[in-house]
Amino acid sequence: MTTPGHKELLEMNSAARIDILSCNLPLAYISAIRARCPEIIVHRGLDAARLEKEIRGTIIAALVWGVTPKNLDLLPALTMVQGLGAGVDHLLEPDVVPPSVPIARVSNEFQAIGMAEYVVLHVLRQDRNLEAIYERRQSRQWGQGYLDHAGARTVGVMGLGNIAHRACNALSAVGFEVRGLSQTAREIEGITCFGTGRLDEFLDGCHHLVCLLPLTRATKGILNSRTFNRLANGSFLINAARGSHLVEADLIPALDSGRLGGATLDVLTNEPPRHDHPFWSDPRILLTGHSAIASALRPENIAPLIAENLYLVARGLQPRNLVDRQRGY
Amino acid sequence: MTTPGHKELLEMNSAARIDILSCNLPLAYISAIRARCPEIIVHRGLDAARLEKEIRGTIIAALVWGVTPKNLDLLPALTMVQGLGAGVDHLLEPDVVPPSVPIARVSNEFQAIGMAEYVVLHVLRQDRNLEAIYERRQSRQWGQGYLDHAGARTVGVMGLGNIAHRACNALSAVGFEVRGLSQTAREIEGITCFGTGRLDEFLDGCHHLVCLLPLTRATKGILNSRTFNRLANGSFLINAARGSHLVEADLIPALDSGRLGGATLDVLTNEPPRHDHPFWSDPRILLTGHSAIASALRPENIAPLIAENLYLVARGLQPRNLVDRQRGY
Repeated sequence: MTTPGHKELLEMNSAARIDILSCNLPLAYISAIRARCPEIIVHRGLDAARLEKEIRGTIIAALVWGVTPKNLDLLPALTMVQGLGAGVDHLLEPDVVPPSVPIARVSNEFQAIGMAEYVVLHVLRQDRNLEAIYERRQSRQWGQGYLDHAGARTVGVMGLGNIAHRACNALSAVGFEVRGLSQTAREIEGITCFGTGRLDEFLDGCHHLVCLLPLTRATKGILNSRTFNRLANGSFLINAARGSHLVEADLIPALDSGRLGGATLDVLTNEPPRHDHPFWSDPRILLTGHSAIASALRPENIAPLIAENLYLVARGLQPRNLVDRQRGY
Repeated sequence: MTTPGHKELLEMNSAARIDILSCNLPLAYISAIRARCPEIIVHRGLDAARLEKEIRGTIIAALVWGVTPKNLDLLPALTMVQGLGAGVDHLLEPDVVPPSVPIARVSNEFQAIGMAEYVVLHVLRQDRNLEAIYERRQSRQWGQGYLDHAGARTVGVMGLGNIAHRACNALSAVGFEVRGLSQTAREIEGITCFGTGRLDEFLDGCHHLVCLLPLTRATKGILNSRTFNRLANGSFLINAARGSHLVEADLIPALDSGRLGGATLDVLTNEPPRHDHPFWSDPRILLTGHSAIASALRPENIAPLIAENLYLVARGLQPRNLVDRQRGY
């Protein structure tokens, strides 16, 4: 059976109402979804146990924004849990989503473009030492001579999903040598691809390391001293995946040793970080506040996908962008 | 006749010495050229009239680094003037190079990569408001919500030569809509191309304008109020070509009116600018000190081309990367 398009879904939808549970959705998202799916009846809450009993039976989908909902097993009609971001690791924790309920995530071109922008910006910012330009502006110094390094610079991108793919192509178009790492080795023109079994070979001598991996048991803590020590001296780190990919205690020692020349972190294990988190005050580290694919998360950019999935499950069909629980993303 | 390669040239070169005039070449360049062309005898000077008469007759090539040489017509054996950069407008001024003497410039992949890096870095820096991230770092603020703008952003690149071509492709790979402007309209996949006759159409509504044009009578002052007024409100300017492309007096008014949101200038009419130049202190302007393709100018990156051209002219052959004087680049 082919999945029907949005228009077909609109026509075939016969449900008078689509009851959903909003777990922390900002109002702008609900408005944008309602504009495309006027049948929604929105119930709010993070804990299904706190809903009135008769409401529990009506909810067919839970939409989740950056929180971990509770007691979803109390919703007998639940047919989908929809995360609003690309990462769904919080929904894959044990006992969060009942095993029979499919989990969907958001995957769209806006994310891929936003991440490509972020990755290319910060690779270039660090590679070309943009901070030195700002310092020269302070002292009104013109001219910088040529850059310290010559020849091809290698960027290793961990992850080769939809989001990482565009970042790799963009880096390659600029002129970088690009290596990609994925669970199963892939073939992509212009990118040297490695399976995770060849991690060391992938890392060896990279001038930049960019983490765009999903967070799973296998990838947690993958950014650690041992990993850094295989990179080129003075190399640069970008983590735009999940905070727990990085062993935070290993970062400042790697910068102090000169192995790393700088780090750009969009994510941290605990967000937002405390004011006295040492990463705030280290000039070699730039924290970017989980903004990498921020524009991809604009309500009007994701509402169409959410509305479509609601119509699909309301008709008893499978939602799009399903998460493979076994694989972890 | 096919032009011989470097190896063939080495073998066929029979001259015991190749006398050259160095007009302002830093020592590192002379060393790098000598490493590939040990026959060179280097005479220094900006004014041929000040050379001893018997030396004048020996010089077959003048190598020029960012200055305007004088009295080259006093060198009867001169068969090439080689500029060391991509731009040669200073060599095309009247009475600088005798009409019969060919002018060569440097054109290599390093320039194209360096410029693509520069353009993509600064388009993204301005588009994503990197300064706001630095400000948040000061106040230790996490999170920025989504960006103000959604949907495709258009970058207009003026110039479609070797250097601009890679920048266009890289911007397109990131996710920008890219327009290119060239003297004669071209067809490039993924880029919307305009001939200079359709300048207004090219400019209309661009969110970024990037100038990579050669400096000619037709392009001097092309970055002016009239041009800016066709762009989108709050758009961004990058000039990495020549200072005289910009009517400097028009810039701050365009920023004050909100038509331009910011400007990145790698070049100015007078370089280096005086300490009290108003562009230094305007936070909306970033001066980058003629560094865009700085790494392309590393001696080891251009010496091979120069050595090859010296061997070519020593054998009575035409040098590579000749400038078309009529066209002006």
